[in-house]
Amino acid sequence: MTDKQNAKHKAAMKKQKSNVDARIEQADLEKGVAVLLTGNGKGKSSSAFGMVMRALGYKQKVGVIQFIKGKQLSGEEIYLRDKCAEVDFYQMGTGFTWNTQDREADIQAATQTWERAEKLLRDDSIDLVVLDELTYMISYTYLNEENIIQAIADRPYEQSVIVTGRGGGSKLRDVMDTVSEVKDIKHAFKAGIKARRGVDY
Amino acid sequence: MTDKQNAKHKAAMKKQKSNVDARIEQADLEKGVAVLLTGNGKGKSSSAFGMVMRALGYKQKVGVIQFIKGKQLSGEEIYLRDKCAEVDFYQMGTGFTWNTQDREADIQAATQTWERAEKLLRDDSIDLVVLDELTYMISYTYLNEENIIQAIADRPYEQSVIVTGRGGGSKLRDVMDTVSEVKDIKHAFKAGIKARRGVDY
Repeated sequence: MTDKQNAKHKAAMKKQKSNVDARIEQADLEKGVAVLLTGNGKGKSSSAFGMVMRALGYKQKVGVIQFIKGKQLSGEEIYLRDKCAEVDFYQMGTGFTWNTQDREADIQAATQTWERAEKLLRDDSIDLVVLDELTYMISYTYLNEENIIQAIADRPYEQSVIVTGRGGGSKLRDVMDTVSEVKDIKHAFKAGIKARRGVDY
Repeated sequence: MTDKQNAKHKAAMKKQKSNVDARIEQADLEKGVAVLLTGNGKGKSSSAFGMVMRALGYKQKVGVIQFIKGKQLSGEEIYLRDKCAEVDFYQMGTGFTWNTQDREADIQAATQTWERAEKLLRDDSIDLVVLDELTYMISYTYLNEENIIQAIADRPYEQSVIVTGRGGGSKLRDVMDTVSEVKDIKHAFKAGIKARRGVDY
């Protein structure tokens, strides 16, 4: 590489650094964040569990509520139960609603599970609350949308909350600080590749 | 809820179940998957670390290479170093390229780091390889794109690999089984909220 190229690179990077630094300086509000991971692509729940790992790295207190349980045991469930007894972990345990095919029973299970979630959202000793697959409870109208939004808005100032699942609706988006939509560009499943242990579940 | 509503719900869920079951039956190829998590939204690296947690739940062997290191220590780094000595974890450690502003040094560091990645991609005892922020090495042309694609294509049949980072290019996408694009719909940072420990890093 020539000196000229190096100088050009250095100038470009210097400019990028000052842009990044300026943006960082502007963001000075220290508070818990509400993150919604939505969309039809792979990576929403796993992202929430990556944040659980981050929080545990800092020895933060974490609560995880899973609103839907697949047929398969999941790696994150095994890991949290085996290695992270300090994490408050709860799973609705009824399976996907198209497996149970029993709306009344699903609503009852969702309501009981939501009560546990509400407790976490009121507990200011908890740094991070994960509400995995919660959006389906809203779209199936198993739970009251207003209650959910209110509980997220009213949570302790320092507490972060991660909600995952497709959809979620515009009212939920409004109350969240960060919304990422995971788009499915390509999926192994469609090419006939089986869901993979340790990656997909 | 009326009996009629319940019956309608049950019929709809039954149909959905048979659709899902049919799709699952079609996907019968058992192999490691290559996943690209790209896009400008929040949740790419955290998703990779969530998959690390999944894999560890199943006691799989995991290797993690981070191609970019921020100024802050990250929760996932602390966690993996403290609690998961069995994970082969390596970090390039030069910081963002706009911080170093030294292209030659960055290329050298990237090349050395890639050699470690290649070793993992040849090791059939490793179930899951995470190449965090690798795409930037391609877009900055710090590493040879063809070498990367070849190494991913030639990896052991049972090994899964997760690549994260914005962009990545169409050639990389072609070699991946699953591609998710994380779109930034809304970001706390833009509302002046500081990056949050345990969520953002």
